[in-house]
Amino acid sequence: MDTKSDNINKLVKPELPGGFRDALPEDMIAKQKMMDVIRGVFERFGFDPMETPAVEKTEVLLGGEKESGKIIFNVIGSEEEKSDSSLRFDLTVPLARVLAANPNIPKPFKRYQIGKAWRGERQQAGRYREFLQMDADILGAKSLDADAEVIQVIYEILKALGVSNFTIRLNNRKEVAQILASVGVAENNIEKTLVEIDKEDKRTPEEWAKGVKDASGLEDEVADDLIQKISSDKNPGPEVDEVRKKAVALGVPETILKYDASLVRGFSYYTGSVFEALLNDLPRFGSVFGGGRYDGLTLRFSRDSWPAVGASIGVDRLFAALEELGKIKKQQTLTQVLILNLSDDYAAEYAEFARQLREAGVNTAIYLGDDRAFSAQLAYAVKKEIPLVVIYGEKEANTGNTQVKDLRTKEQAEIPKDGLSEFIKNRLV
Amino acid sequence: MDTKSDNINKLVKPELPGGFRDALPEDMIAKQKMMDVIRGVFERFGFDPMETPAVEKTEVLLGGEKESGKIIFNVIGSEEEKSDSSLRFDLTVPLARVLAANPNIPKPFKRYQIGKAWRGERQQAGRYREFLQMDADILGAKSLDADAEVIQVIYEILKALGVSNFTIRLNNRKEVAQILASVGVAENNIEKTLVEIDKEDKRTPEEWAKGVKDASGLEDEVADDLIQKISSDKNPGPEVDEVRKKAVALGVPETILKYDASLVRGFSYYTGSVFEALLNDLPRFGSVFGGGRYDGLTLRFSRDSWPAVGASIGVDRLFAALEELGKIKKQQTLTQVLILNLSDDYAAEYAEFARQLREAGVNTAIYLGDDRAFSAQLAYAVKKEIPLVVIYGEKEANTGNTQVKDLRTKEQAEIPKDGLSEFIKNRLV
Repeated sequence: MDTKSDNINKLVKPELPGGFRDALPEDMIAKQKMMDVIRGVFERFGFDPMETPAVEKTEVLLGGEKESGKIIFNVIGSEEEKSDSSLRFDLTVPLARVLAANPNIPKPFKRYQIGKAWRGERQQAGRYREFLQMDADILGAKSLDADAEVIQVIYEILKALGVSNFTIRLNNRKEVAQILASVGVAENNIEKTLVEIDKEDKRTPEEWAKGVKDASGLEDEVADDLIQKISSDKNPGPEVDEVRKKAVALGVPETILKYDASLVRGFSYYTGSVFEALLNDLPRFGSVFGGGRYDGLTLRFSRDSWPAVGASIGVDRLFAALEELGKIKKQQTLTQVLILNLSDDYAAEYAEFARQLREAGVNTAIYLGDDRAFSAQLAYAVKKEIPLVVIYGEKEANTGNTQVKDLRTKEQAEIPKDGLSEFIKNRLV
Repeated sequence: MDTKSDNINKLVKPELPGGFRDALPEDMIAKQKMMDVIRGVFERFGFDPMETPAVEKTEVLLGGEKESGKIIFNVIGSEEEKSDSSLRFDLTVPLARVLAANPNIPKPFKRYQIGKAWRGERQQAGRYREFLQMDADILGAKSLDADAEVIQVIYEILKALGVSNFTIRLNNRKEVAQILASVGVAENNIEKTLVEIDKEDKRTPEEWAKGVKDASGLEDEVADDLIQKISSDKNPGPEVDEVRKKAVALGVPETILKYDASLVRGFSYYTGSVFEALLNDLPRFGSVFGGGRYDGLTLRFSRDSWPAVGASIGVDRLFAALEELGKIKKQQTLTQVLILNLSDDYAAEYAEFARQLREAGVNTAIYLGDDRAFSAQLAYAVKKEIPLVVIYGEKEANTGNTQVKDLRTKEQAEIPKDGLSEFIKNRLV
């Protein structure tokens, strides 16, 4: 048996590693429209684009947390035996690195970034290991005006995406920590108590209360008081209240903002405001947009620190949510016009029609398949859901006019060659 | 000595692994404008967006070439001991995987993809290990009309980017291989002879001729004839000539297209047309845009094959070239208007001005720093090169009018509050 030639003919399975997926045009067109809307809001608020690489030094990503089990992908070059580099797990740590390395960037510095992030955890059903983030952050602004503006940006983006029924929860991690300290939680227990408080959405009230109590190290009675306090959503602390007022002054409706005494968010780097947006019709999606203030993040790299506040959108989760809400219009193609290719004799005319239409900003394709039959090409346009078709064959060449067929309405019209783009532009409005 | 607390205070250097780099707003704004132009051309030609993950199975990426030393990054999840996944090195192999896995996609299928690719080679000065690609491909079209359209797309993109002095070199890899076979190069030697032919730009004529001759295994005299033939750039083969004619019929100027008998391009997957664009004023940049026909690529995954032709732009190289040609206008920020924040008393007015301007599509920031001094805020706007500044302090509150200062011309005008966005829009045209 000739093993060698057998190997050559062995097919590779066309599959992805677990936890990764493609976005074919039907999804990607809609996702890109969503991203363009978000990018537009970021830019109208004065955020500028920035990019950092996918790969960072592992110690940059993990800092002192190297042993903390953060879940990342290590990357190893083909000529290297070991690696000190990994794929980023968010866009915030790389931003802190950029700021520390470029201390002269004028501040306040408002940047947005669109990029993938990766989590190198073992694959589980329904969990993705690559996801697209869109982040906007304000660096070098201590004022709570900046916190309020980030909340306004979240509000404006969800509004621009056609979502109306949503809530933005607000709290202040520093003020929760102060409450913990004031009732007697030892300094060593504060961070782990915050972690337990953060689990309110994922547990039964009893389990949650027990977790908080155990972490706090408090006596029963004091712990019960604490738990009542952080589940009452009354009496907001002075900072969270000021942020709320400032956001309202910027035009965020008061009804959308909700003080949530138990909101602390998972990341320990938050030092003040924390907030997250939830879709009221899809509570199980959890937070689609979250953020907060993290004044200490550059301290990993530098004795100088810059105040910072920002928000991050999990694009894939938001997209899935909007899809479920019926806010996503899927389409198979951006092509608006297909020029049928009925004979090589009219290649010059087809080229001229395409030129005219593209110049008018119309997305236009000339049919490139081999089949010269009218019916096959029309069937292709129908299958791809291309709205308009331009027909120019022998009959049309005799009259000098084209036929334009609207596949949405089945209407057909005879149009002079030089009026093609005007007719089509009107038809597409 | 307390080593532990010493470790805690140890700073991490804010640096990137070798071969990676950031794009700060000054570069990113210009790069994004360039990318938007390219994306616009792709879409006007009927290409649709698609995305694949950064991570693929290593055998998908390398196929039978596992031993060929292709330079990739292996990725290892934090809970895995070994890995069969790697970062993609181009966007073409993932496209072939998608097609093989989704055989029912209507064809011809025209897709574009914007994405990073990585090469896991050891870092060398001036070589980057992450780069951004923009690819457009036509799948399922055997006709040379498709080859010609891809060439037209290259032409239209360079034109749209403001480049005028460029050449698109054309050849046909299959026709070169046929010439080699016809003069007696043994089948086993054809691929390696093509590889040597491809090195023409990188060698002296003598070295190049020797390399080709040695690889071909031909006798001196026959080899000399061959070398003369493939360096003469006359007598194009019938296919490359037809592609050239079709591209001209689509509107690509004849003077830009140049038959190049020794062009074969590095990738062995090309099976027909090969082409690449060069900037005449920057020959040392090499090809900024290249592509060809690769009808066999899906055979790695499937007994079925789809004809395919496409082109790929190395965005970073093209950007560097356009920068050198003075075609890139750098700016520090997209912000068009800074509303000075002179007193908390006027927060409501500032919010209203910003709302009005953003609604009119003007990129607007309210100053978020702590310094309330007029001069500090103006200096910030000057440093960031924000063109317009809106001033509304105590004096203006008394008149009810704003002051708008144009930092480009130093002109200042008194504008009623409700006329602000109209005045500013005119000023920004």
